[in-house]
Amino acid sequence: MARWQPDARGRLAAAALELFAERGFDQTTVTDIAARAGLDKRTFYRLFGDKREALFSGSELLEQTLVAAVAASDAAPFDTVVAAYRRVAEEIFTDRLETVRLRQSIIDSSPELKERELRKMGSLAAAVAVALRARGVDEVTATLATESGATVFRVAFARWLGSGGGSSLAELVAEVAAELRAVTAGA
Amino acid sequence: MARWQPDARGRLAAAALELFAERGFDQTTVTDIAARAGLDKRTFYRLFGDKREALFSGSELLEQTLVAAVAASDAAPFDTVVAAYRRVAEEIFTDRLETVRLRQSIIDSSPELKERELRKMGSLAAAVAVALRARGVDEVTATLATESGATVFRVAFARWLGSGGGSSLAELVAEVAAELRAVTAGA
Repeated sequence: MARWQPDARGRLAAAALELFAERGFDQTTVTDIAARAGLDKRTFYRLFGDKREALFSGSELLEQTLVAAVAASDAAPFDTVVAAYRRVAEEIFTDRLETVRLRQSIIDSSPELKERELRKMGSLAAAVAVALRARGVDEVTATLATESGATVFRVAFARWLGSGGGSSLAELVAEVAAELRAVTAGA
Repeated sequence: MARWQPDARGRLAAAALELFAERGFDQTTVTDIAARAGLDKRTFYRLFGDKREALFSGSELLEQTLVAAVAASDAAPFDTVVAAYRRVAEEIFTDRLETVRLRQSIIDSSPELKERELRKMGSLAAAVAVALRARGVDEVTATLATESGATVFRVAFARWLGSGGGSSLAELVAEVAAELRAVTAGA
């Protein structure tokens, strides 16, 4: 059995991000990542399916946070989804603009990673819709609230990445949600 | 030079759809498609890049119709996009439920085709956003109106494919747009 490693997952993910940025995704091996983290390959494979997964290690936490926030809310569906994304923004993205920007530039450099990112976003949206439906929201409303919330998050996220960091992602989510309300109201 | 063929494009697309449904996408060759349409392979390759393209032959018309409708409108951005999708629904999808359902089942059977479909939808959305911006709409509003309109069309389209054909796609687009307005207003 492998020795227990304190936060091996976090160290491997950070090492992967560093190396992908330094050398490029294709030029980095699992052996390189494990070595940079001071761990062995076996530990890497115990925690991640492949090197791509090391870039997506935050997705489970993101999905859990989002789904828990939806389940705990009794607000209207769209408000619920927007509030859940704000929670995610606060809990996962606070003070992480540089790291997230770096991760995004790596993903944008590879069609394979972009596709994986799209699939992750799709499964995230599906999980949100399921959580809304579990609260008794009808299917169409759940889909429309989920898709509109995802649009808000995408636009807010792009604005945050392009910004100087003056506003937090949570503030931008609230701002874009208000804009989407105005746009769909026909203002 | 190849002989001019009246509607060779339409005949090849129809033959491709028939064969993909009968034999499966992977089991159908360009030679089969050309033979079924009573044309030769050279004519096929003059009109389509590959056999996948024969399934996407309507996308250019769809994009042109959508962009022209956006450019000609002076309504508010979201209303414009919804009206443009209604125009597309009327001009391209009227009385075509069975054909569209067949095409969709072929696309759903292949991850490769699904991915191509997603990319086509993405470039469609980008073209709509560009057409809105050309009307002087700011970037964020253009993005939000485009994404919300695309959500409306996706949901209406799925409802139409799952329906008995009692409502036209254009009617469903209007219906879902009203639902999205209600959901984002927090009703």
